[in-house]
Amino acid sequence: MTALTETADKIKSMEIRGAGKIARAAAGALKEEALSIRTNDIKEFNKRMDEAYNLLYSTRPTAVSLPNALRAVMRYNAGTVAEARQAIVSNADAFIAGSENAVKRIGEIGAHRIKDGDTIMTHCNSSAAFSIFETAFKQGKKINVIATETRPRQQGYVTVDFLQKAGIPTTLILDSAVRYTMKKVDLVIVGADAITVNGSLVNKVGTSQVALAANEARVGFICAAETYKFSPRTLFGEMVEIEERDPAEVLCNELRMKWPNLRISNPAFDITPHKFIDMIITEIGAISPEMAYWVIKDKLGWELEETAEANVKGCDDEN
Amino acid sequence: MTALTETADKIKSMEIRGAGKIARAAAGALKEEALSIRTNDIKEFNKRMDEAYNLLYSTRPTAVSLPNALRAVMRYNAGTVAEARQAIVSNADAFIAGSENAVKRIGEIGAHRIKDGDTIMTHCNSSAAFSIFETAFKQGKKINVIATETRPRQQGYVTVDFLQKAGIPTTLILDSAVRYTMKKVDLVIVGADAITVNGSLVNKVGTSQVALAANEARVGFICAAETYKFSPRTLFGEMVEIEERDPAEVLCNELRMKWPNLRISNPAFDITPHKFIDMIITEIGAISPEMAYWVIKDKLGWELEETAEANVKGCDDEN
Amino acid sequence: MTALTETADKIKSMEIRGAGKIARAAAGALKEEALSIRTNDIKEFNKRMDEAYNLLYSTRPTAVSLPNALRAVMRYNAGTVAEARQAIVSNADAFIAGSENAVKRIGEIGAHRIKDGDTIMTHCNSSAAFSIFETAFKQGKKINVIATETRPRQQGYVTVDFLQKAGIPTTLILDSAVRYTMKKVDLVIVGADAITVNGSLVNKVGTSQVALAANEARVGFICAAETYKFSPRTLFGEMVEIEERDPAEVLCNELRMKWPNLRISNPAFDITPHKFIDMIITEIGAISPEMAYWVIKDKLGWELEETAEANVKGCDDEN
Amino acid sequence: MTALTETADKIKSMEIRGAGKIARAAAGALKEEALSIRTNDIKEFNKRMDEAYNLLYSTRPTAVSLPNALRAVMRYNAGTVAEARQAIVSNADAFIAGSENAVKRIGEIGAHRIKDGDTIMTHCNSSAAFSIFETAFKQGKKINVIATETRPRQQGYVTVDFLQKAGIPTTLILDSAVRYTMKKVDLVIVGADAITVNGSLVNKVGTSQVALAANEARVGFICAAETYKFSPRTLFGEMVEIEERDPAEVLCNELRMKWPNLRISNPAFDITPHKFIDMIITEIGAISPEMAYWVIKDKLGWELEETAEANVKGCDDEN
Amino acid sequence: MTALTETADKIKSMEIRGAGKIARAAAGALKEEALSIRTNDIKEFNKRMDEAYNLLYSTRPTAVSLPNALRAVMRYNAGTVAEARQAIVSNADAFIAGSENAVKRIGEIGAHRIKDGDTIMTHCNSSAAFSIFETAFKQGKKINVIATETRPRQQGYVTVDFLQKAGIPTTLILDSAVRYTMKKVDLVIVGADAITVNGSLVNKVGTSQVALAANEARVGFICAAETYKFSPRTLFGEMVEIEERDPAEVLCNELRMKWPNLRISNPAFDITPHKFIDMIITEIGAISPEMAYWVIKDKLGWELEETAEANVKGCDDEN
Amino acid sequence: MTALTETADKIKSMEIRGAGKIARAAAGALKEEALSIRTNDIKEFNKRMDEAYNLLYSTRPTAVSLPNALRAVMRYNAGTVAEARQAIVSNADAFIAGSENAVKRIGEIGAHRIKDGDTIMTHCNSSAAFSIFETAFKQGKKINVIATETRPRQQGYVTVDFLQKAGIPTTLILDSAVRYTMKKVDLVIVGADAITVNGSLVNKVGTSQVALAANEARVGFICAAETYKFSPRTLFGEMVEIEERDPAEVLCNELRMKWPNLRISNPAFDITPHKFIDMIITEIGAISPEMAYWVIKDKLGWELEETAEANVKGCDDEN
Repeated sequence: MTALTETADKIKSMEIRGAGKIARAAAGALKEEALSIRTNDIKEFNKRMDEAYNLLYSTRPTAVSLPNALRAVMRYNAGTVAEARQAIVSNADAFIAGSENAVKRIGEIGAHRIKDGDTIMTHCNSSAAFSIFETAFKQGKKINVIATETRPRQQGYVTVDFLQKAGIPTTLILDSAVRYTMKKVDLVIVGADAITVNGSLVNKVGTSQVALAANEARVGFICAAETYKFSPRTLFGEMVEIEERDPAEVLCNELRMKWPNLRISNPAFDITPHKFIDMIITEIGAISPEMAYWVIKDKLGWELEETAEANVKGCDDEN
Repeated sequence: MTALTETADKIKSMEIRGAGKIARAAAGALKEEALSIRTNDIKEFNKRMDEAYNLLYSTRPTAVSLPNALRAVMRYNAGTVAEARQAIVSNADAFIAGSENAVKRIGEIGAHRIKDGDTIMTHCNSSAAFSIFETAFKQGKKINVIATETRPRQQGYVTVDFLQKAGIPTTLILDSAVRYTMKKVDLVIVGADAITVNGSLVNKVGTSQVALAANEARVGFICAAETYKFSPRTLFGEMVEIEERDPAEVLCNELRMKWPNLRISNPAFDITPHKFIDMIITEIGAISPEMAYWVIKDKLGWELEETAEANVKGCDDEN
Repeated sequence: MTALTETADKIKSMEIRGAGKIARAAAGALKEEALSIRTNDIKEFNKRMDEAYNLLYSTRPTAVSLPNALRAVMRYNAGTVAEARQAIVSNADAFIAGSENAVKRIGEIGAHRIKDGDTIMTHCNSSAAFSIFETAFKQGKKINVIATETRPRQQGYVTVDFLQKAGIPTTLILDSAVRYTMKKVDLVIVGADAITVNGSLVNKVGTSQVALAANEARVGFICAAETYKFSPRTLFGEMVEIEERDPAEVLCNELRMKWPNLRISNPAFDITPHKFIDMIITEIGAISPEMAYWVIKDKLGWELEETAEANVKGCDDEN
Repeated sequence: MTALTETADKIKSMEIRGAGKIARAAAGALKEEALSIRTNDIKEFNKRMDEAYNLLYSTRPTAVSLPNALRAVMRYNAGTVAEARQAIVSNADAFIAGSENAVKRIGEIGAHRIKDGDTIMTHCNSSAAFSIFETAFKQGKKINVIATETRPRQQGYVTVDFLQKAGIPTTLILDSAVRYTMKKVDLVIVGADAITVNGSLVNKVGTSQVALAANEARVGFICAAETYKFSPRTLFGEMVEIEERDPAEVLCNELRMKWPNLRISNPAFDITPHKFIDMIITEIGAISPEMAYWVIKDKLGWELEETAEANVKGCDDEN
Repeated sequence: MTALTETADKIKSMEIRGAGKIARAAAGALKEEALSIRTNDIKEFNKRMDEAYNLLYSTRPTAVSLPNALRAVMRYNAGTVAEARQAIVSNADAFIAGSENAVKRIGEIGAHRIKDGDTIMTHCNSSAAFSIFETAFKQGKKINVIATETRPRQQGYVTVDFLQKAGIPTTLILDSAVRYTMKKVDLVIVGADAITVNGSLVNKVGTSQVALAANEARVGFICAAETYKFSPRTLFGEMVEIEERDPAEVLCNELRMKWPNLRISNPAFDITPHKFIDMIITEIGAISPEMAYWVIKDKLGWELEETAEANVKGCDDEN
Repeated sequence: MTALTETADKIKSMEIRGAGKIARAAAGALKEEALSIRTNDIKEFNKRMDEAYNLLYSTRPTAVSLPNALRAVMRYNAGTVAEARQAIVSNADAFIAGSENAVKRIGEIGAHRIKDGDTIMTHCNSSAAFSIFETAFKQGKKINVIATETRPRQQGYVTVDFLQKAGIPTTLILDSAVRYTMKKVDLVIVGADAITVNGSLVNKVGTSQVALAANEARVGFICAAETYKFSPRTLFGEMVEIEERDPAEVLCNELRMKWPNLRISNPAFDITPHKFIDMIITEIGAISPEMAYWVIKDKLGWELEETAEANVKGCDDEN
């Protein structure tokens, strides 16, 4: 097993999860692959890099950051393998550094939204959201973070672990207790798997009902998202596919065998409409979700033609 | 361990759960106690019955059906132990039969609300709701019931088991997938732990966010509740206390030890406001939640004085 | 063709329409039938009256007033044909008078809700609503009534005709212009085909979107309904069936032949949820829709057993 | 000036304000009048009592408690002046005692709705609401009451004075700061000038925007109202007239002279729709606003005929 | 009658309807006029072209695409008639091709939003919306389109005709049945007459109540609109005038003569607020309605000065 | 006291109020200061100008227009005092002229939104809103402006004075009568203290409840705001601080001494969420609030780095 296939496996099995981590891991894997390919034939090199690209691309088709990262790393135009290798390494390092810096920047910007004494609810596990919590806490603000369990994979435990290590007061609740608990909440901050062209948020299933309950109680709802999570393919009208994941995540083997006719639905994500999102905190500032089109066009530089092509290339299975 | 203490323990440990089962078990336990007390002294008999009453009362103070059942059984006025015993047995049998019949009647009435082809979501486990599903299914209606897992105690598994045994097509989802799944739902039917004087529904935590999501999508929301679940004490203004249950239900021992500073909130119930409830199906017909006051006064026959007294007797810990 | 079959035909073909007129016509038809049956055998008489009852009952199963009227007239217990005939005539006359008086009473009560200068929107054609308009207008209030066309059968024209004859300023709009026009409206008043046990309004299709638009613009929405329109069968959980009427009402023959594969949906009624209804004006006063259960039980005197029986008798085709 | 005219003047000038105080003052004034009339002619006595009734009735036509109180006192049937006097004194004393007891009872019932640590907003000045605050505070609950100024007559100052004398922590805000402040509020409790037949609340202008802001933020809204504030005349469809009070309350003389063309609108009350009211706390228990019809009919014992008559008698100026 | 006046008449009489068709017809008419003017005097030529411009402009002042098309064609700067004629022909051909291509592009983009098995509601008749239906259907998706009748001119029949010719399963409903039918709908797609600067949609009357009903039931609402439908004049604050069309469209002659005092209101359009619109599908991608200002400024290239001038030129009758 | 300190005092004491006036006064004060500094040493000159900048900056930290104005005037790069003085004078004159012209332009644009016969509500006092009223009125439109009192400083009186002097029909209401009066209102137009990066409106306390009531009644809500009121610091995530102003504005001295334990909350502003704002009228056209980010970036030309720096410079007290 190479570094490439190992990373691909870890992304597929969700050992590596969270859009930022996936993006950085994929960029790193391409870099490692470029360093490990033993050939001086540029055509052979390019072909093997394309295979690496396609392998990684196929692991999590809805993780918007993944194609963005792959595309950023693969933007090279080289006559020799040495040049190509150098370009790929350089692109990968730049992407990883930029991605990590984005999280830090989001932390600084987002911390402004937190007041001393605030109780903040979060769902699933997000590096960008955690960066906000940590920055605010280090500024001396007394905060309390309520983390949901986030069934089926309990990513809430990862959030709890981060918060506890940072010394931030934390409360764990079940996903079913969100509306009950909302009355005590001052602000909701979540991460993002993707932002669509009309500002809707694709994130871990359950996010949309957290947002609905926040909206009902006039509680602010903020999304923390690096701009590479804005989905260029939605510009072309494409809908974000909601993965149906393994029923085994929901129910143990024994019970599935006991109830052979039972259907199990295990959607990985849901869609939070932009009307429930007060603002998105990105590394280029706080912004309204309704301006997502502008971010994709003017900031990420995509055109309809490119999105169409991108579409043809990797995702013909999506619709 | 006597039948009495065994029942009390089972109610306390939630081995016996569901308001109807608790009520019937408590009535049955008083009957067994009456039959097993060995004395001819009516004062001694009454004293021991009062102790039994108080023991049972204390097991689940928010289970409205429990005091209603106890009070129904304990309405006797006897000069001899034999008379008292007979009255108690007779009261208990009548209550249990009436309670079981109520569930059947609710099944018949509620089945009218289900159309052929309907997809119905339910939360937690309710005999009354199940009676509706079973009746409709036996009438030949093709239905599909979506059951939520209902963390932390997975009462959804009990619902799944009932449905699967009855041959009713069933889908299991996680509590976090409620809003995502709501788009495919025609109707929500849930049970009740209690109905308050202004028609709000006290039920397993998570119910209120199911109702919120149903309301957002113009999906009907029906509560199936025997009239003995209408809470007389709320007439006097009392709020239904929301039990905070054992953190061990939420997080395993190992992780609680790993994160000693982590707070865990584990509310047993939440409150669904009447504005989200289209109707309550009771054994006396379908009714608007807003008429709960009338049910308590005219049907259950409570007066303010009695509720006040009831309050003094068993629940001085509630506020 | 007898008076009976003529009335039945007119109800079926909607020549007689409007719930009050149907109820009075049905009562009158039973009376005429009783007077025209030539026999002295009470069994034969009763049998033929039952046939008349069933014939009329079957013409419009969702017109709640119809079974109420029939049942009111058929409440007799007689040993001889003469007695039976007398009882039926007397019941029919009383029902018709009471029904007509109800409309007048509703006019007086409802007129209080109209202020000088009000613009009132109405949908379809309702005697009770018209009675309110006329009473208010005769009190000297300057009003303007906006009548919707009410496709497919243009009952709005009947409303326009009544209003114009009464000299009341009238504006006709299309069903598609309701929301556009709502900004100029002070109050909506409509009639009812039926009121369900939880206070929802069954009325001519389009009513619910008038109510939705009124609610969006904070415009009051009042329903004018005689108490005999409160549906006892909904107490037993039954849903009001929405008739699918003849496609020929929607599209002319020529076009239906041009597009043989075109489906046409022509629902006669829709359901307005009680949350959109500020009050129901009845002959026993203004009342909240949420108290419909009480009206059916305490005012109309129905019990679950009766509704069940009623159900068995005439409507086994409804579900 | 007699006790009668003095009381009438004080009600008219709002020196006596608050519906309960008006009702008790009016009852007391009739009693004093009965005691002070010097005649033995029962016809003369009755005539003068009727004049007293009419004088008091005319002072505040929208204060629902006023006609209720007058009617309760005037229910006598006497052959002699002595008998009549005795009956009036007895009726007045009973009404005053019952009214005062209602406030105490509402305090006990409503205090159950307040949790330790609650911040409660109130508007205007209400004895019934204050009774709840005081009872909860004496039970040892730490509460903070936010009182609005309640322009134009600053009844908020009276509320502040009561609360400060009772030692209850109090915050004063302006009427314009209600929505801003609502985020910190746990519960709103206000009194009532009248409750209409469909459960809407007539209260000091500004109440409805407090309710709207509470509803937007999922904050409970409770009305404290003695049952004599349920308006029988609304049963007959009548709308509660909103008094336009003296512009001098809004703007000083000097500025009104500076701007002679300026119109000033000074409505005394506004209407809070029942959908914004969670429950009404009365002396007969907590109840849904939607059951107001039942309170007026079954508890206050009014019939349509009586309301019509009452209407003819005293309020022909209302529409 | 020339090609110019014939086109003008057809636009005015709504024989030519739908914004795209109007725009292309107007561009074509200017081209024909340019080809038919017999003069070599450029001043005379320009004068007659201006007259043609003004004639066409005046036919449907609210059809935003009309001035956009006219302006696009009239952008020429020529010294000779030959040059001017060539420029006009070239501009007109380019506009027509671009417009037709836009519809095709919107079809491709919008088809992504349709899932296999979807039931889609549409209102009135829109080439862009139809392009989406057709594209999705050709992709093999099983769809069912529900078309509203769209009184008064029954443009729904045109939609039905297109759909039936394409073999797409179609259901026809009345405008009054929109809310009733909405429960079965997965998505609403409509066209546009104009998009205002704040993203509101001006479209055939009835559109806004379709959107309101979709919003109430959490059903997506998509507008398909070429960018030339974004109204530059609204940038300058102008409101889109809602034409009151001929009462004869609403009511036949006979009935209008029967009711000489009847007013008839026949608005051609209504305004759907942006909050009800999930996205606008344009030929430059899917976009949030809230970004309309950016489309007008950055994509269509209008400046305030130009809009002001445009305003002075052709529409001084609008306010 | 110099012109500088006098202006600073007047801004601080709110003698000068309204964001536009503050901005122009501050620009003017810098100009006067530049003209009055007696030195030829450019370092000394710059130092004193910086002191002037800081003095003015500190007077009203939440008045967004103030730093924008100061920054616009202080953009100079000069080697000599004479050059610097000239640049400052020129900048100040340009800013003042541009600001005044903006108000005029907003008046022209906004007047398009007003229809003949409209009743418009406004809150507080805004030059930009007044410019709209005056322009529409001069165009001959019959309008009626309802001005709220705007406690505690009664800025409504200033609005009334402007309107009365202009001959515009005016009605004064209290802040508590907003929701009651909203039923008669066609449009709300208010000014702005600041617009945040996600389009929320910071304005005089009470604005948000006017907007809430307008939204509830489907009444349009327009904000009139010069682009210099768009807050660049919110781009960086900062929240707008809500000043707590002097309790003496709320309650007279005597009463504060009577109730020494009374807390008084006197927030100067509140936040109106963008979802309640239909459009913002600026001097660059009507625009959706959701595009605020674009205005700040593309129109005002701020970058994250600058906002961060600006933040460090003058406002380290804000969080």
